[in-house]
Amino acid sequence: MDIAAFQQAALALLGPKGFITAADDLAPHLTDWRKLYHGKACGLALPASTDEAAALIKLTAQYNVPVVPQGGNTGLSGAATPDQSGQTLIVNMKRMNSIRALDTANDTIIVEAGCILQQIQEAAAAADRFFPLSLTAEGSCQIGGNLATNAGGINVLKYGNARALTLGLEVVLPDGSVLDALTTLHKDNTGYDLKQLFIGAEGTLGLITAASLKLFPAFRARATAFAGLASLEAAIPVLARLRAATADQLVSFELLPRFGLDLAQKNFNLRQPLDIAPDWVLLIEAATPSADFDIALALERALGEALEADEIVDGLMAESDAQRQALWGLREGIVNAQPKEGASIKHDIAVPVASIPAFVTEASAALARDFPTARLLCFGHVGDGNLHFNLLQPKGGDPAAFLGLAPAINRLVHDHVAAHKGSISAEHGIGQLRRGELQRLKSPVALGVMRALKAALDPDGRFNPGKVL
Amino acid sequence: MDIAAFQQAALALLGPKGFITAADDLAPHLTDWRKLYHGKACGLALPASTDEAAALIKLTAQYNVPVVPQGGNTGLSGAATPDQSGQTLIVNMKRMNSIRALDTANDTIIVEAGCILQQIQEAAAAADRFFPLSLTAEGSCQIGGNLATNAGGINVLKYGNARALTLGLEVVLPDGSVLDALTTLHKDNTGYDLKQLFIGAEGTLGLITAASLKLFPAFRARATAFAGLASLEAAIPVLARLRAATADQLVSFELLPRFGLDLAQKNFNLRQPLDIAPDWVLLIEAATPSADFDIALALERALGEALEADEIVDGLMAESDAQRQALWGLREGIVNAQPKEGASIKHDIAVPVASIPAFVTEASAALARDFPTARLLCFGHVGDGNLHFNLLQPKGGDPAAFLGLAPAINRLVHDHVAAHKGSISAEHGIGQLRRGELQRLKSPVALGVMRALKAALDPDGRFNPGKVL
Repeated sequence: MDIAAFQQAALALLGPKGFITAADDLAPHLTDWRKLYHGKACGLALPASTDEAAALIKLTAQYNVPVVPQGGNTGLSGAATPDQSGQTLIVNMKRMNSIRALDTANDTIIVEAGCILQQIQEAAAAADRFFPLSLTAEGSCQIGGNLATNAGGINVLKYGNARALTLGLEVVLPDGSVLDALTTLHKDNTGYDLKQLFIGAEGTLGLITAASLKLFPAFRARATAFAGLASLEAAIPVLARLRAATADQLVSFELLPRFGLDLAQKNFNLRQPLDIAPDWVLLIEAATPSADFDIALALERALGEALEADEIVDGLMAESDAQRQALWGLREGIVNAQPKEGASIKHDIAVPVASIPAFVTEASAALARDFPTARLLCFGHVGDGNLHFNLLQPKGGDPAAFLGLAPAINRLVHDHVAAHKGSISAEHGIGQLRRGELQRLKSPVALGVMRALKAALDPDGRFNPGKVL
Repeated sequence: MDIAAFQQAALALLGPKGFITAADDLAPHLTDWRKLYHGKACGLALPASTDEAAALIKLTAQYNVPVVPQGGNTGLSGAATPDQSGQTLIVNMKRMNSIRALDTANDTIIVEAGCILQQIQEAAAAADRFFPLSLTAEGSCQIGGNLATNAGGINVLKYGNARALTLGLEVVLPDGSVLDALTTLHKDNTGYDLKQLFIGAEGTLGLITAASLKLFPAFRARATAFAGLASLEAAIPVLARLRAATADQLVSFELLPRFGLDLAQKNFNLRQPLDIAPDWVLLIEAATPSADFDIALALERALGEALEADEIVDGLMAESDAQRQALWGLREGIVNAQPKEGASIKHDIAVPVASIPAFVTEASAALARDFPTARLLCFGHVGDGNLHFNLLQPKGGDPAAFLGLAPAINRLVHDHVAAHKGSISAEHGIGQLRRGELQRLKSPVALGVMRALKAALDPDGRFNPGKVL
């Protein structure tokens, strides 16, 4: 590998705007936004077109240069951070940020990989359509990264993950050829569905350069509620009740713990909306594109029935947009209170919805036994079976000492997840963070098929080495 | 390959109920239900469990015996019919027909591959849930076949193809190992989503033995309408209007041509529901699980607006279940009239929804020019962009002579499909039927990736040889 010759060729191909080696410009791309991972690179490439991206990847094949695809660099598992070799090329997609087409008859949008998620949401809204992918980082994450990690977020319950929103992809393969699977068809059974390979592969099989995505009718009405649960178990019948009553238009069904609300109040002075303080509350949102459906009434009625059935102990409907914002602000407050409380050890897990109460009870008890001073903060997308099961350091304790417990705590939590046939990464991916645990917990047959796919598409192992597998 | 030794070993493994070589018992498995394809086999295996299936496939690997997976044998592309070599083993899944689990909290069902589709629909209904996959063959097709072909049907518009309904799969790989990806998780980003490989692969990459599938809230109300279109173009704004008005709970949006209704009337004496006879009509169905949503009112209002906007020229709502059945009977009458009219050359195509009018106009004109006596019968799932674009033989003409035109007519139709970036197989798959056209029209890069996947998973090419690729 002749790095200097590669750098020269890449500069000649992409020009000074498209190929960067200055240390200051590289620096922000060499670490993740939580600053947990740090790497080195032989350059940062910013292709401006699919042709440029393809020519660049051909060049990396020719010079045998490893490639780390990078989007908005907002991932939580270190998938977009290069290793320490210094021989890797980072390919950031931010210059490919055009919306190529928007079709309201077909309800599709074709976007380049570097489009910011919010830009796509806004383009859809401007056409009186809705693009459902929504997550905290939406102001800076890129759709290419969302697809490479099969991002989830707050609307998965109704609309599914990024995968479910994708009709087609354009991908530069490791040999530099372009796979044009950028179809906008809603149905196509002509052979293997190749786009599926690259969604969620975290850049290990190719570089996503564009995508065609589904749009949905824009909402005409939205209803938001807050409800105190009689017990964690009661979340399950409430979910089924509300899914049916809202015509399966429940968009969010978020579980929040009393401890989390207390933290939000303590750190950000956020008011508790209910008069009582149950152990668990639900933040619920339903939305409809039909002007003929009174979704607020439907939600309120169903919550009334849940109250009568002793599933919830109290509840309120947001009566204004400000009230709605305040309810969502509480959830955000829980997320943002975590760093204020010191170090935390986070788990992004999923179990079958029915197993949530048992998992939480069992894993909590085991943690209380083995790590009695760690503080459990468990919240999340309970409608998807997905919990953020986080441990905060003991009050006033030493952050570094607490983080030293991470391998043992991870192991304990993930073993309980595995016992319930759950997932150790519901939406954040594997990256570098969960590579060891994946090897430990995934079946050897599944790992074998993954390795066979990797060898078939990237025989030299140049794409995002050290990630996932 | 020692066929006699393999037969003896298979018989010893599966017993006389599980391994059959008698010609009479084999016969129905050697041809497709349309009797277009005919093959030979060295035996019919009927494994009764995943363990048996895995041991059997290990045996086929050991003796180098090719395998044709077969479900209800209702496919339309010849994917389940063996070749003429006589060395192939047919593995039919009908003895693996248990429903392993049904979870109303998680809204999932785990079924074995040999379950009849209708059996799954009924199990869901008995638990007050809805399983959306629905197609003409539902009384005899098996879910394993539905998944292997990524089946579509009449509810795709709201619920997606078989792929969209699948959370997990259990698959016996060509080497006989069992891939247990039978998760019921709604979210799981732990590595490549391996189930996607086998859905729609038509048995060329492995044998599906079980699946976990999504359930939905049962319907509380349904509304069905029939509307005469002002023009084919008008179907597009009507679709957008109704999707929004019904809260995106439009289940079916079927286009029917005047010629088709005439055929249904002529052959089955089915009454035309509208007083006028527009060139195109829509059969529309919306359904909701919410008792609080008057979906019939919403649909009727939206159709009223479509009438005022001159998008439709007449319409009616089904006022009873009998009327609803009669409307759907008309669609069925169109399908069933085809064989009564002699030979037909069928195309199962998709284009972007917006391109439907242009595609129909252009392809019709080209057909009228080159094949002026062929009678076009075009109907289908217009909400998915999916048309059954069929040519019926000239009245009183010679069926065989007409069928001789199939290659030229296929080519003409598929070229028009390709010009609109469409699909030559929207829901029926490739099988043997479209293998040549796939090679002609799919991009060399995509075909290359497909071949790489095939080589990675089935290096000896033993699984469903001669199909798809």
